[in-house]
Amino acid sequence: MNQPSGPGIALIGCGTVGSGVVQILQESADLLAARCGRRLTLRHVVVRDPSKDRGVDLSGCSVSTDIQAILDDPESQLVVHVVGGIEPALSDITRLLKSGRDVITANKALLYEHGEELFELAGSLGRTLCFEAAVAGGIPIISTVNSALTGNRIRSLEAILNGTSNFILTRMLNERQPYAEVLAEAQRLGYAEEDPAMDVDGTDAAQKLILLTRLAFGTNVRMDQIVRQGIDQIELLDLLVAQELGYRIKLLATTRLKDGRLEVSVQPTMVKAHRSLSMTSGADNYVAVEGDAVGRLTLSGAGAGRMPTASAVIADIVDCASGRAQLTFQSLLRTRGGQQHDLLPAEELSRRYYLRFMVADQPHVLADIAHILGGHNISIGSVRQDETAETAETADTPGIARLVILTHRTTEGQLRAADAEISQLNCLRGTRIRLPLAD
Amino acid sequence: MNQPSGPGIALIGCGTVGSGVVQILQESADLLAARCGRRLTLRHVVVRDPSKDRGVDLSGCSVSTDIQAILDDPESQLVVHVVGGIEPALSDITRLLKSGRDVITANKALLYEHGEELFELAGSLGRTLCFEAAVAGGIPIISTVNSALTGNRIRSLEAILNGTSNFILTRMLNERQPYAEVLAEAQRLGYAEEDPAMDVDGTDAAQKLILLTRLAFGTNVRMDQIVRQGIDQIELLDLLVAQELGYRIKLLATTRLKDGRLEVSVQPTMVKAHRSLSMTSGADNYVAVEGDAVGRLTLSGAGAGRMPTASAVIADIVDCASGRAQLTFQSLLRTRGGQQHDLLPAEELSRRYYLRFMVADQPHVLADIAHILGGHNISIGSVRQDETAETAETADTPGIARLVILTHRTTEGQLRAADAEISQLNCLRGTRIRLPLAD
Repeated sequence: MNQPSGPGIALIGCGTVGSGVVQILQESADLLAARCGRRLTLRHVVVRDPSKDRGVDLSGCSVSTDIQAILDDPESQLVVHVVGGIEPALSDITRLLKSGRDVITANKALLYEHGEELFELAGSLGRTLCFEAAVAGGIPIISTVNSALTGNRIRSLEAILNGTSNFILTRMLNERQPYAEVLAEAQRLGYAEEDPAMDVDGTDAAQKLILLTRLAFGTNVRMDQIVRQGIDQIELLDLLVAQELGYRIKLLATTRLKDGRLEVSVQPTMVKAHRSLSMTSGADNYVAVEGDAVGRLTLSGAGAGRMPTASAVIADIVDCASGRAQLTFQSLLRTRGGQQHDLLPAEELSRRYYLRFMVADQPHVLADIAHILGGHNISIGSVRQDETAETAETADTPGIARLVILTHRTTEGQLRAADAEISQLNCLRGTRIRLPLAD
Repeated sequence: MNQPSGPGIALIGCGTVGSGVVQILQESADLLAARCGRRLTLRHVVVRDPSKDRGVDLSGCSVSTDIQAILDDPESQLVVHVVGGIEPALSDITRLLKSGRDVITANKALLYEHGEELFELAGSLGRTLCFEAAVAGGIPIISTVNSALTGNRIRSLEAILNGTSNFILTRMLNERQPYAEVLAEAQRLGYAEEDPAMDVDGTDAAQKLILLTRLAFGTNVRMDQIVRQGIDQIELLDLLVAQELGYRIKLLATTRLKDGRLEVSVQPTMVKAHRSLSMTSGADNYVAVEGDAVGRLTLSGAGAGRMPTASAVIADIVDCASGRAQLTFQSLLRTRGGQQHDLLPAEELSRRYYLRFMVADQPHVLADIAHILGGHNISIGSVRQDETAETAETADTPGIARLVILTHRTTEGQLRAADAEISQLNCLRGTRIRLPLAD
């Protein structure tokens, strides 16, 4: 096809996602040229080790270790940045914006930490910063919130945003394997990093939720203001008990506008088994957005991985090359921070809860715990006490019982206070956990 | 907020959707002004009966019965067309485009019949035609296929696109009510038209699927080329048997690219109960798009109704007012009809099938039917014959048995031939039905 040549593209980082971007740019060159109205040319790739085989053909472009190669080339106007970490990402993107380039990034940690200043900078320079790939991989949730739902006042976000955690929870239940074994397997399969802390402790999901919350509610939230709990305390027995009770446990990231205040939390949550949320399995992501006009809109699909994330980056590239992204970014800048909602303090979050204790199998235990809960005005919905647990971790440990309580609606604050008291009981054995129930 | 005033908006049709559009334009005026960078002003409303109360305040704009009022106003540059039917919609939109207006329409029947010529016309005039609201109501499936998945070669669409049919099927099963009763109720509730034919015979879903197929596969398909079957032959007993077998029956609209040819069908289909597709209940819609990069991406939400559809129209308005829609439409025109795929003839569609017969409870019936199936190389997976049916329609009819057969994979052609022979058997009583099983 005869299309005029478009903006030259430079790529910083050519790992999993970067090489996927190169592959699509090469294999779908004609289609993308038709979409953009001009041909896209990859001119530079900047990587740490140029000698490493990336599994894609980079012979048509310069490969270097320094972004100076990009800065020196006036025809490289669009820079795709697919490197993690805060530095040198922040310095690099800052330099690129200041040099007059538009930037596409998939770095959610950077956007969480420095997104506001980067947006401000890009805006003041008349440049554009795109980040569809930073949240939920192949799911177009950024464009959905920024464009498709533009006529809506968003009421809530309810999402599964960390594929690693969802993979681990799914696998533990399906294979009846304990957390540590599944985590090790996820690391072997490449679903979990060598240091999985950010994934399994909820940080990654919280960063993404906070980004979405900025877009959907115009409100800046700090990590230390939200309730955050990871999956690393979940035991196989909790997944099995949840299943018996008709639930699944999902690492749920939720922002909800209630009486003018925002509730923001990332927590393993008991979700009714028959909800489509519970069907989200493996490394998939799920985002439900509730808007005052559209009602509940749900998107689900691959939340990470080479080609799904590359698909999102390519959407940004075409948006930039066609001129749409610039208009969308201006719109984002105009609506940013319009209304800052107050946050509901964590203590006031009101939900039903699942409480699971391992206790000595002796008289008065249930009475003691029930007494403490009652003292904090926490009313008990149902109780199950079993002598032996079904899991390998705790099976047939003599004299230990598993006690599961579903409470009626109470607050996080009341529950924390009760838990502090319960933790002093000498009947406790091993771990205990509390998980909210999804509404 | 101080925003320059933007393009004047004219509205043709102020029924369910139109009045929803007016409501959002009024209630979210500031937000929309920030999104667009300029204030949106509703200048004209054209309706058949100006005296009718629309439940919204139209005092700020002219209300007339003739689109000439729009044509006479040079400041009305953006026309929202939310009227059904082919005429005068076709003439009106043609005149508006020729007069230099951009047009947003929700009329899928018009786009199915005349979309190609209207796109051609708009393109030749440098105008833009938007239609997010024409398919799947509040679900942004048009922008997802046109923009978000732009880097993908689409492999399949699998969708629930007719809310009325889905409402009826859901309700029949949940309330154990026969088709006719639920249809009447759906009409009372406004979920079904007075003449429900287009909805329940699959025409509406097929029109929407054909529109999506054009966008996703660049291929024009005619209604008479696809397998189309409505829900009007489904009996309560089929829903109950499906449930017993672990399935739900959904009116599934499917386009699949297989070995270079397109399979296109709209049929009530047996879907495994645990799939998220089967969780789509009531008037909701569901669209799963499979792309070579993104994998399977699923969107679900309200497929019709006043505010969800208005939400999609507003997205188009903001896209037009910000200048994005014009760029997207140019892109659509450039990629349109790039590769015309051949269609797989209906006879060659290959699936497993559910067959249900009402038969005389006498010897040889199963043998006769099995013999005919075998003669057409259709192999039987499982059989259930029950003396009495559980439903009010057929309960305890003496001497009649319900025979259900699940076949192994076979073709639509073989099954049609077998069915023609079976239809000659004198053991048949009442209705019979065949439904494909989803892969």
